[in-house]
Amino acid sequence: MGDTIGSLKEVREILGTLPGPDDEVAAKATEREGQLTKPPGALARLEELSEWMCRWQGNHPPRLERPRVAVFAGNHGVAAQGVSAFPPEVTAQMVGNFRAGGAAINQLCKTFDAELQVYEMGLEEPTADFSQGPAMGDAECANAMAYGMLAVQDGIDVICLGEMGIANTTSASALCLAMFGGEASDWTGPGTGVRGDALDNKTRIVAESVALHTEAKDDPLEIMRRLGGRELAAITGAVIAARMGRVPVLLDGYATTAAAAILHRIDPQLIDHCVVAHCSAEPGHIRLCQAIGKEPLLNLGMRLGEASGAALALGLLRAAVNCHMGMATFAEAGVSDKE
Amino acid sequence: MGDTIGSLKEVREILGTLPGPDDEVAAKATEREGQLTKPPGALARLEELSEWMCRWQGNHPPRLERPRVAVFAGNHGVAAQGVSAFPPEVTAQMVGNFRAGGAAINQLCKTFDAELQVYEMGLEEPTADFSQGPAMGDAECANAMAYGMLAVQDGIDVICLGEMGIANTTSASALCLAMFGGEASDWTGPGTGVRGDALDNKTRIVAESVALHTEAKDDPLEIMRRLGGRELAAITGAVIAARMGRVPVLLDGYATTAAAAILHRIDPQLIDHCVVAHCSAEPGHIRLCQAIGKEPLLNLGMRLGEASGAALALGLLRAAVNCHMGMATFAEAGVSDKE
Repeated sequence: MGDTIGSLKEVREILGTLPGPDDEVAAKATEREGQLTKPPGALARLEELSEWMCRWQGNHPPRLERPRVAVFAGNHGVAAQGVSAFPPEVTAQMVGNFRAGGAAINQLCKTFDAELQVYEMGLEEPTADFSQGPAMGDAECANAMAYGMLAVQDGIDVICLGEMGIANTTSASALCLAMFGGEASDWTGPGTGVRGDALDNKTRIVAESVALHTEAKDDPLEIMRRLGGRELAAITGAVIAARMGRVPVLLDGYATTAAAAILHRIDPQLIDHCVVAHCSAEPGHIRLCQAIGKEPLLNLGMRLGEASGAALALGLLRAAVNCHMGMATFAEAGVSDKE
Repeated sequence: MGDTIGSLKEVREILGTLPGPDDEVAAKATEREGQLTKPPGALARLEELSEWMCRWQGNHPPRLERPRVAVFAGNHGVAAQGVSAFPPEVTAQMVGNFRAGGAAINQLCKTFDAELQVYEMGLEEPTADFSQGPAMGDAECANAMAYGMLAVQDGIDVICLGEMGIANTTSASALCLAMFGGEASDWTGPGTGVRGDALDNKTRIVAESVALHTEAKDDPLEIMRRLGGRELAAITGAVIAARMGRVPVLLDGYATTAAAAILHRIDPQLIDHCVVAHCSAEPGHIRLCQAIGKEPLLNLGMRLGEASGAALALGLLRAAVNCHMGMATFAEAGVSDKE
């Protein structure tokens, strides 16, 4: 689907065609959970994860043979405003580190037997500075979404989405302020490490940029075009394609969740196939999770991005699936389930 | 050490001989974390886990070749008071399920490559009903601790401690009330599923039992002897042996943490080598974690026991160690670490 999309209008048309949950299959998972040798509900969120996988895969038992971690990397014109603690060339350097196997995400993918795919989005040519005008043109934004859709290939059972992009927490903050309102300072935070005057500057840039693009405020795709970035638009696209392809999604931290929230703002049900994997230490993330009604699986104070929190949650997903399929029922084990 | 202990007096003597942290080795881990390709502190709790492992293993790099999950099973005389939703024979049935590979803990050990050891503690002969008198004699309690110590063998890198024992959340509640005060209802909860009148009965039994044994209130080992159980005393013993053997400990839920808290009540530093793996849905657990100053790694609403939360946290530990050892430094990766 991704290779034929040239405008946001076409993206809008796809949104009307996405499949819903398979509640019948999810009920099979729920029924089995009730028979397993544990007090009812005692595995709590692990049981919910098995049911959620079945609901969106449309299949029981849940499958986790081939999880993919997709990291999208992009550069942002707004970096010129001094909003990050690191220079923009770090985006490409970190992509090199991903390819060489030296980043955190490489170790996490090895730990949890996931396949890593890194998608570079024109790093040498950043998006336009959204404090001056729209970050992307219509076709540029739609193409980025289409590129993201390509990450969801046949045979992928679960996809972990994440990003790398110097200045992209500034973009995420602007997206959230435009989508959910409040004060700019509700949504900004240190990112890779800005504090004091530099953080005040970041907050001011976010406030002014959202004010500049206020005419977009009721059109989430237009918010993405004006205040987002290529890697974030790609994540929005990947979330759409995952829904189409019946692939449950683990969302990483703040920037990734903001990209998915674009769809929530269009219709909350559009991200029912997504779980937020980890609550970032970036302060806007918990507020964003509340705004979209998602409780993160993990809360370990991490603030790295690059899909690290999503990959870490794969361990929980694997545990959930293995318990669901490997545990004995009360009848099989000869354990009394009567009070 | 475990096989020569016949009295709580001997346990007390051992407590004075336990080794402290190796801060010099932990500093090596901290130094390396600062050089890895991520913003400083961006892996947060994962970085802390690597440092904590080094501090208590006394070795850098941290080792996680051989994690052991130890589940202690015991039966409680107080079960006769109708405090559990399941009959006492379920303890032995679940041990059978552990041995046959059908329980949640079996699947979790497979998922995270851990060795499972199950320790039965005289299931056919429950401890005495502590609502009528002390649960155990002095030698019986000391022997149970000594048995628990045997779980910490040479070559184990990390130990996950957990329990199985119908009525043992009643025992855990009584231990906590005796150690930390408050109301009995602060410490009781549904356990395997008691509600309404049955929960009121459980709370009353806890209050009356602690009142009966009030003379023990300033002597934590005596609190364990009177209000504990064999599997809980074994966990206390295993925590002691792990300190002696430089083995970091992941504590499972409410009953396990209560058994470790006995040592905290003697001297808070005695459980510095322990991390609480998962915050149980059993309501007393979060209160207990606050009382001993520990923040659980995971909070997934689980309330199963059998070391399930501790085994699940092994995935985080493995991720921490793999990131710590496998990530490139800024210098190795040619990534700019300058602002």
